[in-house]
Amino acid sequence: MKIHANDVIVPLDVPKAFQETYTRNYLEITRESGHLMLFAGDQKVEHLNKDFFGEGIPADDNDPEHLFRIASKAKIGVFATQLGIIARYGMSYPAVPYLVKVNSKTDLVKTSQSDPFSGEWYDFQQVIDFRDNSGLKILGIGYTIFLGSKHEAKMLHQAAQLVYNAHQHGLISVLWIYPRGKAVSDEKDPHLIAGATGIALCLGADFVKVNYPQKEGMESKEIFKEAVQAAGRTKVVCAGGSSKDAKDFLQELHDQINISGAAGNATGRNIHQKPLEDAIRMCNAVFAITVEGATVEEALKIYNN
Amino acid sequence: MKIHANDVIVPLDVPKAFQETYTRNYLEITRESGHLMLFAGDQKVEHLNKDFFGEGIPADDNDPEHLFRIASKAKIGVFATQLGIIARYGMSYPAVPYLVKVNSKTDLVKTSQSDPFSGEWYDFQQVIDFRDNSGLKILGIGYTIFLGSKHEAKMLHQAAQLVYNAHQHGLISVLWIYPRGKAVSDEKDPHLIAGATGIALCLGADFVKVNYPQKEGMESKEIFKEAVQAAGRTKVVCAGGSSKDAKDFLQELHDQINISGAAGNATGRNIHQKPLEDAIRMCNAVFAITVEGATVEEALKIYNN
Amino acid sequence: MKIHANDVIVPLDVPKAFQETYTRNYLEITRESGHLMLFAGDQKVEHLNKDFFGEGIPADDNDPEHLFRIASKAKIGVFATQLGIIARYGMSYPAVPYLVKVNSKTDLVKTSQSDPFSGEWYDFQQVIDFRDNSGLKILGIGYTIFLGSKHEAKMLHQAAQLVYNAHQHGLISVLWIYPRGKAVSDEKDPHLIAGATGIALCLGADFVKVNYPQKEGMESKEIFKEAVQAAGRTKVVCAGGSSKDAKDFLQELHDQINISGAAGNATGRNIHQKPLEDAIRMCNAVFAITVEGATVEEALKIYNN
Amino acid sequence: MKIHANDVIVPLDVPKAFQETYTRNYLEITRESGHLMLFAGDQKVEHLNKDFFGEGIPADDNDPEHLFRIASKAKIGVFATQLGIIARYGMSYPAVPYLVKVNSKTDLVKTSQSDPFSGEWYDFQQVIDFRDNSGLKILGIGYTIFLGSKHEAKMLHQAAQLVYNAHQHGLISVLWIYPRGKAVSDEKDPHLIAGATGIALCLGADFVKVNYPQKEGMESKEIFKEAVQAAGRTKVVCAGGSSKDAKDFLQELHDQINISGAAGNATGRNIHQKPLEDAIRMCNAVFAITVEGATVEEALKIYNN
Amino acid sequence: MKIHANDVIVPLDVPKAFQETYTRNYLEITRESGHLMLFAGDQKVEHLNKDFFGEGIPADDNDPEHLFRIASKAKIGVFATQLGIIARYGMSYPAVPYLVKVNSKTDLVKTSQSDPFSGEWYDFQQVIDFRDNSGLKILGIGYTIFLGSKHEAKMLHQAAQLVYNAHQHGLISVLWIYPRGKAVSDEKDPHLIAGATGIALCLGADFVKVNYPQKEGMESKEIFKEAVQAAGRTKVVCAGGSSKDAKDFLQELHDQINISGAAGNATGRNIHQKPLEDAIRMCNAVFAITVEGATVEEALKIYNN
Repeated sequence: MKIHANDVIVPLDVPKAFQETYTRNYLEITRESGHLMLFAGDQKVEHLNKDFFGEGIPADDNDPEHLFRIASKAKIGVFATQLGIIARYGMSYPAVPYLVKVNSKTDLVKTSQSDPFSGEWYDFQQVIDFRDNSGLKILGIGYTIFLGSKHEAKMLHQAAQLVYNAHQHGLISVLWIYPRGKAVSDEKDPHLIAGATGIALCLGADFVKVNYPQKEGMESKEIFKEAVQAAGRTKVVCAGGSSKDAKDFLQELHDQINISGAAGNATGRNIHQKPLEDAIRMCNAVFAITVEGATVEEALKIYNN
Repeated sequence: MKIHANDVIVPLDVPKAFQETYTRNYLEITRESGHLMLFAGDQKVEHLNKDFFGEGIPADDNDPEHLFRIASKAKIGVFATQLGIIARYGMSYPAVPYLVKVNSKTDLVKTSQSDPFSGEWYDFQQVIDFRDNSGLKILGIGYTIFLGSKHEAKMLHQAAQLVYNAHQHGLISVLWIYPRGKAVSDEKDPHLIAGATGIALCLGADFVKVNYPQKEGMESKEIFKEAVQAAGRTKVVCAGGSSKDAKDFLQELHDQINISGAAGNATGRNIHQKPLEDAIRMCNAVFAITVEGATVEEALKIYNN
Repeated sequence: MKIHANDVIVPLDVPKAFQETYTRNYLEITRESGHLMLFAGDQKVEHLNKDFFGEGIPADDNDPEHLFRIASKAKIGVFATQLGIIARYGMSYPAVPYLVKVNSKTDLVKTSQSDPFSGEWYDFQQVIDFRDNSGLKILGIGYTIFLGSKHEAKMLHQAAQLVYNAHQHGLISVLWIYPRGKAVSDEKDPHLIAGATGIALCLGADFVKVNYPQKEGMESKEIFKEAVQAAGRTKVVCAGGSSKDAKDFLQELHDQINISGAAGNATGRNIHQKPLEDAIRMCNAVFAITVEGATVEEALKIYNN
Repeated sequence: MKIHANDVIVPLDVPKAFQETYTRNYLEITRESGHLMLFAGDQKVEHLNKDFFGEGIPADDNDPEHLFRIASKAKIGVFATQLGIIARYGMSYPAVPYLVKVNSKTDLVKTSQSDPFSGEWYDFQQVIDFRDNSGLKILGIGYTIFLGSKHEAKMLHQAAQLVYNAHQHGLISVLWIYPRGKAVSDEKDPHLIAGATGIALCLGADFVKVNYPQKEGMESKEIFKEAVQAAGRTKVVCAGGSSKDAKDFLQELHDQINISGAAGNATGRNIHQKPLEDAIRMCNAVFAITVEGATVEEALKIYNN
Repeated sequence: MKIHANDVIVPLDVPKAFQETYTRNYLEITRESGHLMLFAGDQKVEHLNKDFFGEGIPADDNDPEHLFRIASKAKIGVFATQLGIIARYGMSYPAVPYLVKVNSKTDLVKTSQSDPFSGEWYDFQQVIDFRDNSGLKILGIGYTIFLGSKHEAKMLHQAAQLVYNAHQHGLISVLWIYPRGKAVSDEKDPHLIAGATGIALCLGADFVKVNYPQKEGMESKEIFKEAVQAAGRTKVVCAGGSSKDAKDFLQELHDQINISGAAGNATGRNIHQKPLEDAIRMCNAVFAITVEGATVEEALKIYNN
């Protein structure tokens, strides 16, 4: 499943002068597989400290450097987190491929209180300047949209700007799209998830991360096909969700890619909520399925070493 | 019904240096007929995936490329959709005439929950830069206003800017205007639709797309005349609406143009919710009535081949 | 009642380089009388199509060109309407003196639902560019404030900017000020109308258009004096309101100017809701009273021809 | 009580190049006394026409020029009003020292309906340009904050900008600070007034105008000391309030300065709600106490002539 | 506990040209200890005059200069307060190291009325210009975030900009983060405080000031460790809170640093709510523990002299 420069369809909002950069970033972020293994590390804001400290979570995980240690020692496509934390650890982990998540919010205000809004923290030019000043390998940029929130218009605008501006500089854009708000009764409805991936396409995104659809009496891996197809040339990756049994988790990943047609995954807790060595092995297992075309058994072997 | 360059009245907000561009775009978008056949493909955002997947919709339609295949193989005036999706398929369909719809929203938040607002996704200059970088034939730009929404002021402002800026560069402007919101009790009231088309004129738009008015005991084709006349030099096109019987649909189009005096139509679902070959033939039938002055019978013959 | 250049007090926010332009525009807009006869044609947005089509309104009025035909064939001070419609008809009516109304809203959302806000459609520079590109005689610029609305602060800001910027370029500024909102119990209270004209002065406007005050047991022409005096060097013109009997209407105009001390009027429906020839004669009658110092009888004779 | 240039402590946000301008303006606005007699003439917006017309108010006061006649014929420190009205009368009263009040609102929307917000009408640069174009003696700039309003953050921001920018050009800044809003139960609480003057200091203002504190069983002149001291190097002036008996009014002023330690006053209605000659004499009496160190008896003699 | 230039890890958003400035500021603000003793003097806005006048507060404290006297005579790391007050006293206290707190709000509007928002008063460039014009030793810049407020997004954006821009110029950034709002039931929950410090890291801050966590049945000094660790390379300092017994206060400080691992403290009321000499000695005692590694007994001896 190796892809080459001429397999990459460069979107038309990438200026000619940056087409080569785009192609290079695309190949690097997918490790020349066309598939994206995104190591998600933005939860310190999104979930506060719940994901990093507490029962069942090893002590390693409360040290923020844990994420960087994994990202630097395991195989990943890209490590996604906020600019500020990259600015503080990047000098110690210069070889890691980064994706800057430019908006984030806490989960303190619940949807039952008011519809979610996550606003961008930086102007696009600041991200570019940061990349150039830091010398880090920043391959992409990410943004979350809460579809169906009454603040949807602001997020659609910021997301459109983010994708457009990323492409203006040859960067890869990833959208996280979650239907959420008073108007949304079933966040995992397959039809709605397909709407979300279709919107990512209309916004011109390279990748869109959505939740795995669920519907009673139906298999997620089957109903997920609608969303993958509706996204067209925008590639779909699936959120990993909360920590679960390794085999089940890897099987799910494998199904998403090999049955539903997803182009990868975005995994956070299933990796970092483990002691360092376990985390690295799980990361490599996820990478094996996503990028290297491994079977579930092969991946499990990597994890179990 | 062929028109020539000197039949085109160039609005005065087009600078002298762009008058020729405007005239050329106007002739091209109307295929030298003065009538506009707009193939509407912005529903992946507006209606999410409901229009593209489900009972009664052929499998073809869930692949976003379906829209581009139709647009490239059938006769159309212009294909209207979002910039992002154009950026991802345009390189494969470079001959299609495009219109960039710059604002879009989902229909998740219902009017009963809160008044609608659809905000622009791009600054005008970005659309122009995209046209120039991509080399695509972008002839026009579109925007939706929800009249009577409590957010009306913001949309009137963005629409005024859009028309003004489109004209500054010689592009054709199309406004979608729908009365909608808590304050609107009858969205299809003929008087209100005429108010909408009059506003399009006051905003200086080239074309305005409205819904076909309805009033109990009256014929739509008759009461629609008020709106067409109230628009003056702004030309009125009618939304196609949901899929219906081919003959009824084509008859309605024919009436709108030949009885009410409309200058075209904006058709989406009646075209793309068909397998590719059917869709192309329907598209050509619509084009025949709109641009080529065909009768309903002639158009039906085209559709039925 | 002829005035000359040195009768014009140029406000100090007009830069020296534009003082001559201001004086010329002031003399032209008042036809060298110091009085303003403003032909109001912004209702297609403000009132939608109600003012132009329906029982008692002649068919002529539903054609937007009706307004331009009147403005070009009758005597007026200035024709006030939106930029977009001027852009579409101005090439056919290049001799008409225009005033661009930069904000407008529909009347769909009632005050009982929420307080009114009318936002500007264009940046000031766009109006100037439009004047220069079009070559039209744009003498002034207008803006509506709804005083007492909870959105008052935004409108006061935009109005202050409009007057200041108009003066920066030597243009004449006209404010429409209507007390309206949940906080306003009597929109025509003479004291409140006087507050409105005083605010126009504090904003530096050249002319302010207000409604004719009404108070039970008092004569409007008498109680209106408070407002005229409170405006100081800002000149007060009165809104014409809905269509009424010609003699009563002309008598009212005459009283406003000759008893209350108003400096003119802003008339729309009493002119355009008539067939073209009648409209022209009424317009000339209004002009005769306002600018030429005619008596009511003389004006009626003009109207009745 | 004469002060000299080297008694003036120039704040550090005045650039070196403007320190001399600042000192000159400070000496001029305080008439070389360090005390400020501010003639407040911004009520045409704040109170509409209630302060200028009606029972007990002489006819002179409804002519806006009344304020300028007083300001030019009486002794004052500075005349504070809106830019627009200055622009229309300034050419006739070029010797008056002016202070531009950049924000204003009407009192139509009551606090019981919604929390107050008063927004700036002009960018700072426009005030400077106006000063330079007009050649008027504009010594300072003023802004009102409603503390405790839910819109407090916007006003604190605009006030901080106003003081900073005034100082950037060597102008004197005056803040009007009134606790007001749903959260404020006692607007004249001495502790709260002291909070207000302390905030003025933190904003870097030169002068702060507050209401005279009141507390049952306590003397205002005593409890006002807390506020004067809490302001530190920002000088406190007291609002004059509604018209009252001349002797009581002058005694209050004298107490504020000589007992509480205030550095002046801001008087409007107690001056302009009088026929011209009376107004001038009252103005001179206020000036005598504030700037010239007169006793109440001496001041009364000036007023009674 | 002396640190040197090469112990300072310069964040990657500091451009190369400013790395030396950053290091110098970092060493100076921590007095070459890596620990921060921040003398907090922003309460005149945050708490109005309650902290400075009233029962149990010495008269000295109502004179704003009290704060500057302490800051100039005692040992401190940095004195944090608003720009305006620095502008008015800085010329008399030029040797004090300052930190500009750029946002502030009053506590008039309670959380029960509406969620807190504190907006920035100055653009970043103004702070830099002020530093350069004034010649003062401005080492850092501070901002408060109310986490869980419905206005969180705006504050996260302003805070991200503040840290980024501070680093662009080599300044030290300090965030005050307090969970507060309708959504927050327990502001001192240790888990939530750890979330707050983690967010400071994701924002790239150098220091974060939080409240000391409290949980029934647990020792604050123990549960605070979670927050210190979760902050990673962002250093945690603890708010001093309201005035308390000297020994208890100093013990708490000592525990925070030596048991919990905090890197300092932010103390206001426990210092300035004392007569000048006492305040200076307390300040020195706090400094001794924080920066000089003193024991509680040694510090108490300093305080008791």
